[in-house]
Amino acid sequence: MRVLVVGAGGVGSAAAGIACRRDFFTRLVVADYDLARATRVIDTVGDERFVAAQIDASNAEAVAALCRAHDITHVLNAVDPRFVMPVFEGARAAGADYLDMAMSLSHPHPDDPFQRTGVKLGDEQFAAAPAWAAAGRLALVGIGVEPGLSDIFARYAADHLFSRIDEVGIRDGGNLEVAGYEFAPSFSVWTTIEECLNPPVIYEKGRGWFTTEPLSEPEIFDFPGGIGPVECVHVEHEEVLLIPRWVDAGRVTFKYGLGREFIEVLRTLHKLGLDRTEPVQVGAARVSPRDVVAAVLPDPATLGDKMTGKTCAGTVVRGLGKDFKPREVYLYHLVDNDWSMREYGAQAVVWQTAVNPVIALELLASGKWHGTGVLGPEAFDPQPFLDKLVEYGSPWEMREQ
Amino acid sequence: MRVLVVGAGGVGSAAAGIACRRDFFTRLVVADYDLARATRVIDTVGDERFVAAQIDASNAEAVAALCRAHDITHVLNAVDPRFVMPVFEGARAAGADYLDMAMSLSHPHPDDPFQRTGVKLGDEQFAAAPAWAAAGRLALVGIGVEPGLSDIFARYAADHLFSRIDEVGIRDGGNLEVAGYEFAPSFSVWTTIEECLNPPVIYEKGRGWFTTEPLSEPEIFDFPGGIGPVECVHVEHEEVLLIPRWVDAGRVTFKYGLGREFIEVLRTLHKLGLDRTEPVQVGAARVSPRDVVAAVLPDPATLGDKMTGKTCAGTVVRGLGKDFKPREVYLYHLVDNDWSMREYGAQAVVWQTAVNPVIALELLASGKWHGTGVLGPEAFDPQPFLDKLVEYGSPWEMREQ
Repeated sequence: MRVLVVGAGGVGSAAAGIACRRDFFTRLVVADYDLARATRVIDTVGDERFVAAQIDASNAEAVAALCRAHDITHVLNAVDPRFVMPVFEGARAAGADYLDMAMSLSHPHPDDPFQRTGVKLGDEQFAAAPAWAAAGRLALVGIGVEPGLSDIFARYAADHLFSRIDEVGIRDGGNLEVAGYEFAPSFSVWTTIEECLNPPVIYEKGRGWFTTEPLSEPEIFDFPGGIGPVECVHVEHEEVLLIPRWVDAGRVTFKYGLGREFIEVLRTLHKLGLDRTEPVQVGAARVSPRDVVAAVLPDPATLGDKMTGKTCAGTVVRGLGKDFKPREVYLYHLVDNDWSMREYGAQAVVWQTAVNPVIALELLASGKWHGTGVLGPEAFDPQPFLDKLVEYGSPWEMREQ
Repeated sequence: MRVLVVGAGGVGSAAAGIACRRDFFTRLVVADYDLARATRVIDTVGDERFVAAQIDASNAEAVAALCRAHDITHVLNAVDPRFVMPVFEGARAAGADYLDMAMSLSHPHPDDPFQRTGVKLGDEQFAAAPAWAAAGRLALVGIGVEPGLSDIFARYAADHLFSRIDEVGIRDGGNLEVAGYEFAPSFSVWTTIEECLNPPVIYEKGRGWFTTEPLSEPEIFDFPGGIGPVECVHVEHEEVLLIPRWVDAGRVTFKYGLGREFIEVLRTLHKLGLDRTEPVQVGAARVSPRDVVAAVLPDPATLGDKMTGKTCAGTVVRGLGKDFKPREVYLYHLVDNDWSMREYGAQAVVWQTAVNPVIALELLASGKWHGTGVLGPEAFDPQPFLDKLVEYGSPWEMREQ
């Protein structure tokens, strides 16, 4: 297996740091728009199988050319979701398989954005599914932690725990704190604004996909591992689009444990128009308000050693158990920032995202996972994946509710 | 009387619109950095006593030169408080009397900003009081609505209603709403951030002036005129510095009825660092985050015809009445935006500020008010002022509490 990782940011560099301990590949190219950033990753890894390259991820032909230059068999997309489509198309043009951790972007319904879907997350990718299948190639989309591991939990529940699933609800939360800052998000604030202020999507059997108000239906979810209760709200996320395609479920939702404080910050930014991306005139300068918000906050990739606490990703499944009695479980995965910093030098959220595509690549390399077309993580047998997670030193858990 | 109004913004132009109905002056020069803006005010007023001029309010010599060129007897400062000192000094250099509606700016205590005062509001002006007195000239500082009318209410209570005053508490609130905007402040957001996020100052007899945390000690105050309950918090304001100099009071506070929503917005802006004035790098541009906040919000001076509701400024006085029995009153002044727009084409907050210095000028012109040195509004007999307010069609009221 010869892998191209596009993007040497937090997740791309953590994936390199995880992969270098495994032997399922012979070549791993880390490419970034900024060659120096890619080179720093290679220098840190210190593994002869790794090389650095420069790439413009917005250009599908450049992606294809780099694949051909290195005889790439698998492209792992680790850049901003704005670049999903050119990387996806470049991989297919070069005859490589493709993996990503976020799907092609949505566009709200033009007239009725908070009730009806417009262009949904991943729609552009699924439109290309016949072409991928015809070419005998695989695009495994949404194989981070959420989407990714959360989808695998849903499939595991369907295969091994339930006879009927009434609801699958992804619940993500943590108690990460950053010392020395009054407010410091642990993930890209630009992306967090994007996903949290888009109309959230919900799936119901018989009704299909529909949308609701951003940050709506707050609920307090009690997270395990000492995290405790966190306020969660509806957020647009890929699982809602992926799970119903392969798992028979009455309803699928995603709620993000932003906590009261972050929710208020997002509401305020939106109310003032500071979430907007269109530039405004400020004196002689023209700037995007959302870029100004990102500029005044600390860069989350640099905060790992100031962070403490845990992050939890997981899936609530409710329905009838194999014994046809009502059952509800929470399948989850915890990462303690102290552990991920000590073991991998990566902060918890970034590490928890990056480990999953590395495991998927290893399963594809071994042939335990295989397929063609555009598939989600829940299209595959969950057991070998969950076993690998334990083998990688980061076990998953389950709570009966 | 020959008046120079420095600043043709909201308050300066409203003052011109009010003054043109009065006959106490023979010349009124409206000066602005932007001559076109001053000219628009003159064109709207259509009164031969008015002329427009260009001025750089940051330059005391330019202020003095303009005073001399027009034989100015009284300068009314209606620009941003950053320019108080040059306008104040320019007026004195030219031998003119001076009025303003906000005093020279404070600087927090370098070590202990939320307990001890540093340089207080007006300190720079009061330092020049001997020079003004020696020259036989008057600087009447803080003669808008708050400070201004609120100070006059305190003096009125001391003269006519109370034998002992335990506490004077200014309470300002409204129910103004702007149609078509989710969030639209009715006053300069730059200035609101400045006054609300500085350490608020409190006065107590025996202890003197001290500071506390911004936005602290929230209380719900029930405003009259149908406004109802609004959450008020401590804010730095001139009354706390002025009233104890002339009125014997046990304690003086200022609480601003920002309301829950505005308080949350200010807290969030501060938490994220978006209140900062030092520029940050955003791509190729360098911008002040506070300027970006102002740029994304609508300009309050342009919102008058989209606004509805009332604004209320007033003074709570608590102590022993003339009969030595416990008494508490709220002396207040309400302006309905519909009325101020219909009568004067000025939005309520701006009009309520501008009427007071015009009345003060009229009382100085008639000799009913006179004095030398640097004096606050509470240094003068309140009765003729309050009578004029009624005569101007905008009566004040009192509520026993």
